[in-house]
Amino acid sequence: MLVVLKQGATQAEIDAVCDKVRDLGYTPHPMPGSMRVAIGITGNQGSLDPAQFGHFPQVAEAVPISKPWKLVSREVKTEDTTIELRGPRGDVARIGGGSFVVMAGPCAVEGREQLFASADAVARAGARVLRGGAFKPRTSPYSFQGLKEEGLALLSEARERTGLPVVTEIVDPRDLEAIERSADMLQVGARNMQNFALLEAVGSSRKPVLLKRGMSAKVDELLMAAEYICKNGNYNVVLCERGIRTFETLTRNTLDLGSIPVIQQMTHLPIIVDPSHGTGHRAAVPALARAAVAMGADGLMVEVHPNPVEALSDGPQSLTPASFQKLMVSLEAIADVVGTRL
Amino acid sequence: MLVVLKQGATQAEIDAVCDKVRDLGYTPHPMPGSMRVAIGITGNQGSLDPAQFGHFPQVAEAVPISKPWKLVSREVKTEDTTIELRGPRGDVARIGGGSFVVMAGPCAVEGREQLFASADAVARAGARVLRGGAFKPRTSPYSFQGLKEEGLALLSEARERTGLPVVTEIVDPRDLEAIERSADMLQVGARNMQNFALLEAVGSSRKPVLLKRGMSAKVDELLMAAEYICKNGNYNVVLCERGIRTFETLTRNTLDLGSIPVIQQMTHLPIIVDPSHGTGHRAAVPALARAAVAMGADGLMVEVHPNPVEALSDGPQSLTPASFQKLMVSLEAIADVVGTRL
Amino acid sequence: MLVVLKQGATQAEIDAVCDKVRDLGYTPHPMPGSMRVAIGITGNQGSLDPAQFGHFPQVAEAVPISKPWKLVSREVKTEDTTIELRGPRGDVARIGGGSFVVMAGPCAVEGREQLFASADAVARAGARVLRGGAFKPRTSPYSFQGLKEEGLALLSEARERTGLPVVTEIVDPRDLEAIERSADMLQVGARNMQNFALLEAVGSSRKPVLLKRGMSAKVDELLMAAEYICKNGNYNVVLCERGIRTFETLTRNTLDLGSIPVIQQMTHLPIIVDPSHGTGHRAAVPALARAAVAMGADGLMVEVHPNPVEALSDGPQSLTPASFQKLMVSLEAIADVVGTRL
Amino acid sequence: MLVVLKQGATQAEIDAVCDKVRDLGYTPHPMPGSMRVAIGITGNQGSLDPAQFGHFPQVAEAVPISKPWKLVSREVKTEDTTIELRGPRGDVARIGGGSFVVMAGPCAVEGREQLFASADAVARAGARVLRGGAFKPRTSPYSFQGLKEEGLALLSEARERTGLPVVTEIVDPRDLEAIERSADMLQVGARNMQNFALLEAVGSSRKPVLLKRGMSAKVDELLMAAEYICKNGNYNVVLCERGIRTFETLTRNTLDLGSIPVIQQMTHLPIIVDPSHGTGHRAAVPALARAAVAMGADGLMVEVHPNPVEALSDGPQSLTPASFQKLMVSLEAIADVVGTRL
Repeated sequence: MLVVLKQGATQAEIDAVCDKVRDLGYTPHPMPGSMRVAIGITGNQGSLDPAQFGHFPQVAEAVPISKPWKLVSREVKTEDTTIELRGPRGDVARIGGGSFVVMAGPCAVEGREQLFASADAVARAGARVLRGGAFKPRTSPYSFQGLKEEGLALLSEARERTGLPVVTEIVDPRDLEAIERSADMLQVGARNMQNFALLEAVGSSRKPVLLKRGMSAKVDELLMAAEYICKNGNYNVVLCERGIRTFETLTRNTLDLGSIPVIQQMTHLPIIVDPSHGTGHRAAVPALARAAVAMGADGLMVEVHPNPVEALSDGPQSLTPASFQKLMVSLEAIADVVGTRL
Repeated sequence: MLVVLKQGATQAEIDAVCDKVRDLGYTPHPMPGSMRVAIGITGNQGSLDPAQFGHFPQVAEAVPISKPWKLVSREVKTEDTTIELRGPRGDVARIGGGSFVVMAGPCAVEGREQLFASADAVARAGARVLRGGAFKPRTSPYSFQGLKEEGLALLSEARERTGLPVVTEIVDPRDLEAIERSADMLQVGARNMQNFALLEAVGSSRKPVLLKRGMSAKVDELLMAAEYICKNGNYNVVLCERGIRTFETLTRNTLDLGSIPVIQQMTHLPIIVDPSHGTGHRAAVPALARAAVAMGADGLMVEVHPNPVEALSDGPQSLTPASFQKLMVSLEAIADVVGTRL
Repeated sequence: MLVVLKQGATQAEIDAVCDKVRDLGYTPHPMPGSMRVAIGITGNQGSLDPAQFGHFPQVAEAVPISKPWKLVSREVKTEDTTIELRGPRGDVARIGGGSFVVMAGPCAVEGREQLFASADAVARAGARVLRGGAFKPRTSPYSFQGLKEEGLALLSEARERTGLPVVTEIVDPRDLEAIERSADMLQVGARNMQNFALLEAVGSSRKPVLLKRGMSAKVDELLMAAEYICKNGNYNVVLCERGIRTFETLTRNTLDLGSIPVIQQMTHLPIIVDPSHGTGHRAAVPALARAAVAMGADGLMVEVHPNPVEALSDGPQSLTPASFQKLMVSLEAIADVVGTRL
Repeated sequence: MLVVLKQGATQAEIDAVCDKVRDLGYTPHPMPGSMRVAIGITGNQGSLDPAQFGHFPQVAEAVPISKPWKLVSREVKTEDTTIELRGPRGDVARIGGGSFVVMAGPCAVEGREQLFASADAVARAGARVLRGGAFKPRTSPYSFQGLKEEGLALLSEARERTGLPVVTEIVDPRDLEAIERSADMLQVGARNMQNFALLEAVGSSRKPVLLKRGMSAKVDELLMAAEYICKNGNYNVVLCERGIRTFETLTRNTLDLGSIPVIQQMTHLPIIVDPSHGTGHRAAVPALARAAVAMGADGLMVEVHPNPVEALSDGPQSLTPASFQKLMVSLEAIADVVGTRL
């Protein structure tokens, strides 16, 4: 159910409707738009009677939401959601609403030298967000599992050093506080897209969330996972297409770029592309990155390692600093043509 | 690396080798067999020198393991693993090693009456383990999420009432202790098969674990997930084939029965079949259950609801008590022919 | 549209309705049942007016068919279709309607000695139909493409020698006459399931057709392919589940046994299982074959080679004569229990 | 096996080597490059002795080909293959080698008015090749199957009218001559990618072939299908990525753009993209088309219908003439930036 307020409703009027929603035993989710405010309602069983809200003079209309996902739907909010990440020096990375953000850095934080080399290179080349994994979910228990707390500390240092906001993965709800202290954005990885305990945890955080599509997740399941986060009150969710699992083994995953224009019609949330996991081949990453900007995605997440052949994880799909810099130049040229900005 | 002891090695000799392994900084995993004991070693980087163990007179041989999964491999243990669940009255359900176990009960615990009706029915029909979900991972945050702690309490009651050991799903490491108090076996669901924080948690438990294959998990990833659990010291893992996600939408999932004989060559762990999730159609469950016993799987997990049309989850794939009872009769007949026992 | 005649309608009355259908510009497809005859109608655009057939006193009812597939649907014919293949000595292999037929033989006819060794072995062990490929569709143009006409001649010899009817694959409409002369049943392979020119060709033949499911075919597409054949007047179609292509590479294909009970509700056509292609591993074939009989499939197609390691195609999935004979014994035991007969 | 001639080898010298290859019982496939000529050899069983060709003074080297596909491999020919289609007025559409070709037109030829409206529009907007189906492979035997010969005649008229060369689908080897008379390029559709009889037929034609990837074809199978055509002497093959079948049903297929950069490393053949079948949603076609040019594909095949809502096939994915024209403008802008030309 969505309650749409009249243009010019005051904060007091918005609050009054929210109080009414709470009185009825439900949860209000105010959704500010450029023209007017809407309030999503969750917690109801079955449909609500719109008449309940009709007495409020500031209510323009009360409408049911037809889709199983509610708060993330374009029905609830027609305008694009824009999310801002603020770095330590006040620089702002803007995601959604017409800009194109590049997040880059190493797959895993392996040590100070490796992280700083990658961070410096991506900052210099124009990336707006630094990525790097401290907690690494690995298929084998015998693979490098990340530097964990030590990795978080190094990310904090790199953040200060480069001025870039940081995104890093969370794999366990019990790590939430530690990660919130070091990172500006929480990443939920593909394998955890339906780890609902984790989704609820990041939904209770006030840090923006990068939600990667599960490797066998249908788009409606991705939206439902985002809905778990929004329902808990965290509306700053960025979706990430990183490839799905198919019969084709030539590439590590099958990057589902074709879903992106359709997803953009379904949800107001931004969606970015991870071409590194999407293909698994370093040489193919630039082509897919260019495709992403040309087609109107909201950004990229790219793995960059100072020395990919020695990387402890995902070396074969990591760009070198030099190839990343070259890529950024071509992305900017295409961005110009399609009317977006890096 | 695997250290195989000579036949007749004493417990003291086994302990001495384990101490040596620990001295070297690794973790020993003793694997008792009917003829002799082997000790798996984890924690090493790269290969170990077998000569390090050659001085121990009780060591027959020290061999490297060729597969990426170690402790779950037939290389480490050629004999089938048998796992026993003991009910409140001392009845034992045996999983693996030539028997065929049927686990049955409702998808979700919905209330006392519903649970007891299902539990009584499946006990009467010959099921050896009671299943029932208290914590339900659901695609939508607006679907019934389970009765949680109240559900656990009801499961404890049903356990006493029927004498059956209980298996129930865990979705959050923070729930481990509560679930251990109420259940005899911990279920890790398909969506959490690569929730490594959860795998490590159940690996630290002494309760047997039922590990369901992820809907996009390759068999080697399933074995790797089991390896996470064993590596933490819990060797009592039962695998469960419950269908994978494919292009075919006629059935809820595509039950991959064809992998089972191949999995049985790869691992000593038991593997059971969930025909309910495997097809999603009540009418197709009995045929698939019969196929499972005929082909030599180690058991079944079947959803049974006293009134499927009113079930809060998975109603369309739940059997009625009557059809379950009829199914059990036909399973017993086939079990007789193929030389196993229910 | 389906016109159902009253019980006891004479052949003259049936013919009269068929003539009426043709007068209207459509094609009649009489479907004899044990109780009464129905006549399927194709060739109409949009729905027909049932009143057109109401004047015929022998017409019980005229009903539209709701599914996109018509002639193969249970709506048109509720009883199982039974298809008979008659060998050179009058022995009849019955497919569908409660029996369980085993078709066996080499993947490809490689020569007289190899074919006869396989044919003798499968006949001795109780197979009712001999399979063998003369025209082989191969992924690589450099692989053995079959003995072609020479292979057909050898199949004719093996047919006489063993008394078994023969099924062999057709890959080109231009080969139809030659294959009809040598074989009792025409096989359309998985890669050609939507080769509509070929479907129309075998639809114009009076030989029964074995239609294998394409490796990416949804069940409704399989039924539609069968409909192409029936629409051309050949109603003797046997479906064959042989595995679909999924992300899992442990097995050659993923055998979709779970669809079979659902398919059996949708169509009156028999459906058999090919466990050889379904798994690709010789050692897994017997388990899947036992599953097929236990679950109620209508038969099997199994590859048997006198010397699998030297086979020119599909050696790794071919049974030896000895293992095939052993398999037949266990199939018979399960068939007894589930109430079917080999 | 590949025999590479020295730079400057004369035609007589090339012929001499080809004769030698034939004398040995094999088939020579001369592959002219800008620097020197290579001759692929097929028809051998096992490896050849390079020494057999060493006596020819003009032979620089004789090297085995490591891949299972030979003639289509970059090992045999490092330079891009460029294929030219010449229209009735001498205009040339160039495919491969740095240009970007747009093929457009209706899915099916439905009549003169419809075809001409579409043809005129795409010609005006800058398409270089006219597409249109006369023989339509349809899942249902009851769907519109194309105008067949009448459709070919209309395509010939549209070809004269617009000056554009024509590509149309062939579904039956017996139609080859008729289609060769009306079309400049033969299309093999996704469902027929492994219809080997058809591949051999178009391989014996001298018309270029557009080979669409099967919906469950792995890339190596696509290359093998192309190899069937080249082996028969027709080296003018253009590959087409049109989407594969996956679990995702939001889009009609999953367009596998991520494979394209990898395919381009494997083969010298051009590869184009079909965004219409790739997504199935009209609104998503332009984004995917822009992605294709940005990433370096060799062209596009796009469905354009004067009145998509009334189209007899594929209406939902067909662009209107107006949206196609708009698309062409944006493609040209991106082509400029990435250094290709429409």
